[in-house]
Amino acid sequence: MIYFDNAATTWPKPEAVYDAVVNTMKNYGANPGRSGHRMALSAARIVYESRELLADFFNAKSPRDIVFTSNATEALNMAIKGVLKPGDHVITSSMEHNSVARPLFALQKIGVEWDVVKCDSRGFLDPEDVKKAIKPHTRLIAMTHASNLTGTILPVEEVGKIARERCILFLVDAAQTAGIIPIDVQRMNIDLLAFPGHKGLYGPQGTGGLYVREGVDITPIKEGGTGSLSEHLEQPRMLPDRLESGTLNTPGIAGLAAGVRFIKQKDIENIRTHEQKLTSKFLEGIKYKKGISLYGPGDPAHMCAVVSLNVMELDSSELAYLLDSKFDIQVRPGLHCSPLAHKTIGTGERGAVRFSFSVFNTEDEVDEALEALDIICSRI
Amino acid sequence: MIYFDNAATTWPKPEAVYDAVVNTMKNYGANPGRSGHRMALSAARIVYESRELLADFFNAKSPRDIVFTSNATEALNMAIKGVLKPGDHVITSSMEHNSVARPLFALQKIGVEWDVVKCDSRGFLDPEDVKKAIKPHTRLIAMTHASNLTGTILPVEEVGKIARERCILFLVDAAQTAGIIPIDVQRMNIDLLAFPGHKGLYGPQGTGGLYVREGVDITPIKEGGTGSLSEHLEQPRMLPDRLESGTLNTPGIAGLAAGVRFIKQKDIENIRTHEQKLTSKFLEGIKYKKGISLYGPGDPAHMCAVVSLNVMELDSSELAYLLDSKFDIQVRPGLHCSPLAHKTIGTGERGAVRFSFSVFNTEDEVDEALEALDIICSRI
Repeated sequence: MIYFDNAATTWPKPEAVYDAVVNTMKNYGANPGRSGHRMALSAARIVYESRELLADFFNAKSPRDIVFTSNATEALNMAIKGVLKPGDHVITSSMEHNSVARPLFALQKIGVEWDVVKCDSRGFLDPEDVKKAIKPHTRLIAMTHASNLTGTILPVEEVGKIARERCILFLVDAAQTAGIIPIDVQRMNIDLLAFPGHKGLYGPQGTGGLYVREGVDITPIKEGGTGSLSEHLEQPRMLPDRLESGTLNTPGIAGLAAGVRFIKQKDIENIRTHEQKLTSKFLEGIKYKKGISLYGPGDPAHMCAVVSLNVMELDSSELAYLLDSKFDIQVRPGLHCSPLAHKTIGTGERGAVRFSFSVFNTEDEVDEALEALDIICSRI
Repeated sequence: MIYFDNAATTWPKPEAVYDAVVNTMKNYGANPGRSGHRMALSAARIVYESRELLADFFNAKSPRDIVFTSNATEALNMAIKGVLKPGDHVITSSMEHNSVARPLFALQKIGVEWDVVKCDSRGFLDPEDVKKAIKPHTRLIAMTHASNLTGTILPVEEVGKIARERCILFLVDAAQTAGIIPIDVQRMNIDLLAFPGHKGLYGPQGTGGLYVREGVDITPIKEGGTGSLSEHLEQPRMLPDRLESGTLNTPGIAGLAAGVRFIKQKDIENIRTHEQKLTSKFLEGIKYKKGISLYGPGDPAHMCAVVSLNVMELDSSELAYLLDSKFDIQVRPGLHCSPLAHKTIGTGERGAVRFSFSVFNTEDEVDEALEALDIICSRI
């Protein structure tokens, strides 16, 4: 089987990830940060070390700035709803996922004003257009780091600079880039970074997080037991406790840490190079194929390892079904939870088939996919 | 090591739980409900079967009524914030955990009115007192099924009847009872049931859920990608999608299902009998010990397997530390994230040490704990 659906969830994971999850469940199965007994302290240590690791990975100032969530969607909701109040203005790109668009759609109803800056048909954003969209009451710029549809990398650094200069909070959705493209929250002027654990960081599903720059106040969307200041009915103000109510997913977090260690050991630059090589080979291979409509930049330097296409008039679900059933190649068809992005690139009606690669994919697998596309194209 | 902190997280888990988590990560690691390829469909099937299993376990009408969350706290926040609007009135008991109390404390600031019905010093609630607290604008009664501090079982069935008769929504926090005491949402007139996966259901940390009776409208606290109706910026109305944004914790959910299967195989009545036997033995053993202050009903028929106590003037953390370091017995000291309950039983200042048993604990372990308490009492 060839798995090319890594933009949804990376698979397989490094062996160390499976081991960390099981080892934690079996040997450190207590509740972290609650009781003071030895197994609870061991669990708390696992969580703390994972926090340290992620803080270092994204160059956060302190492990306290890393909040664990169950996925990137939760992190994005926390950030968006924790910051925006009625009367505030927010700017996004037109390449956003529904995990940004749907919370904002909901907030519009309570008086949050939302402007979408249009990207071009390959998904590129002009930072000048963001600058022009700023209003006196702009409170937040929320932007994906790379499109989950076209792989297009957005100019995070440039927009971060614009946001910081105007004291506007800057939220980055790193769903497609965490673990894949180096992220430095300080250098990039990122105030809030939402990241999934189960994609480029090679952790298990059920993990993710939110980086919160010290001093940024987030009103929690969930309150509850934090194991701290238990005597108070008011949610504690200190991070990460303020945003981490209820029992954490300790085995998942241990697995996520193992994923991050795997990346550090491989070096993210090597991973990026490998994925660019696969993307480049795939793009070269389809460039001259008749009947293929390719979306996005078409240039690995400006993309993460995500390529979307359609074949002639074939429905995207049908193409994906053929690839799966006849060639054992697993890709994702449809709308990819990103209607704004589809509208931007002109595939709002039919969707597209997405190929997405991970560090575990090989050039031979890309060759097989190209052959499969050849055969499909020749038979239609 | 003797682990008596099962009210926080049960440990160990049945072997089948560890196996299900790893097997899912290794062999069904795709994203459920997103792509249509075979591994994604297998992952979706795992999630659906788990939903079916839990619906059957709580006697819900349909698997659609089960929403997966990352823990019970998330489920409680979803229910409370999804239902209550400014101007609504809510009633709780005085034995609630901070996962109910803190969201309500926050909602008070936006105009939700909250009345706490006082339980007696053993944690018992008189349903008549709930009836008396009802106002014309009472929208919700939220109540724990059993106290995480004293184990006291609250009269869910009686209060459910009162709520249903008056068309008031009834939310039950089953953090201490799911998998331990049989729950039938239809018979008990429960509209919303929040449950953790990692306690009495023997699933992994990072799992839990919310049962939502068909027809109860919950405004989501999180929106995002649901893999359904992707073309719409409005969150879908259908359950469970409406409340399940972002990638689910498939391996965790598979582990939770394995935990529920374990309970079904053992039969919940047998588990309850075993835990009552342990509780009874423990209570008998400490009844005549000098210097021990026991809290709660002191009668296993009215409790889940949770016993809290203090020894003379010893600080609860010190007692727990002695038990851990000298006798290898792991218990939880302090305030247990339940300041309202501590106030009710009169331990708001000093906290208490909690012993909580699971199906894996034995009578010998209880004997060892009793001996340890003897030694500690004799030395003070």
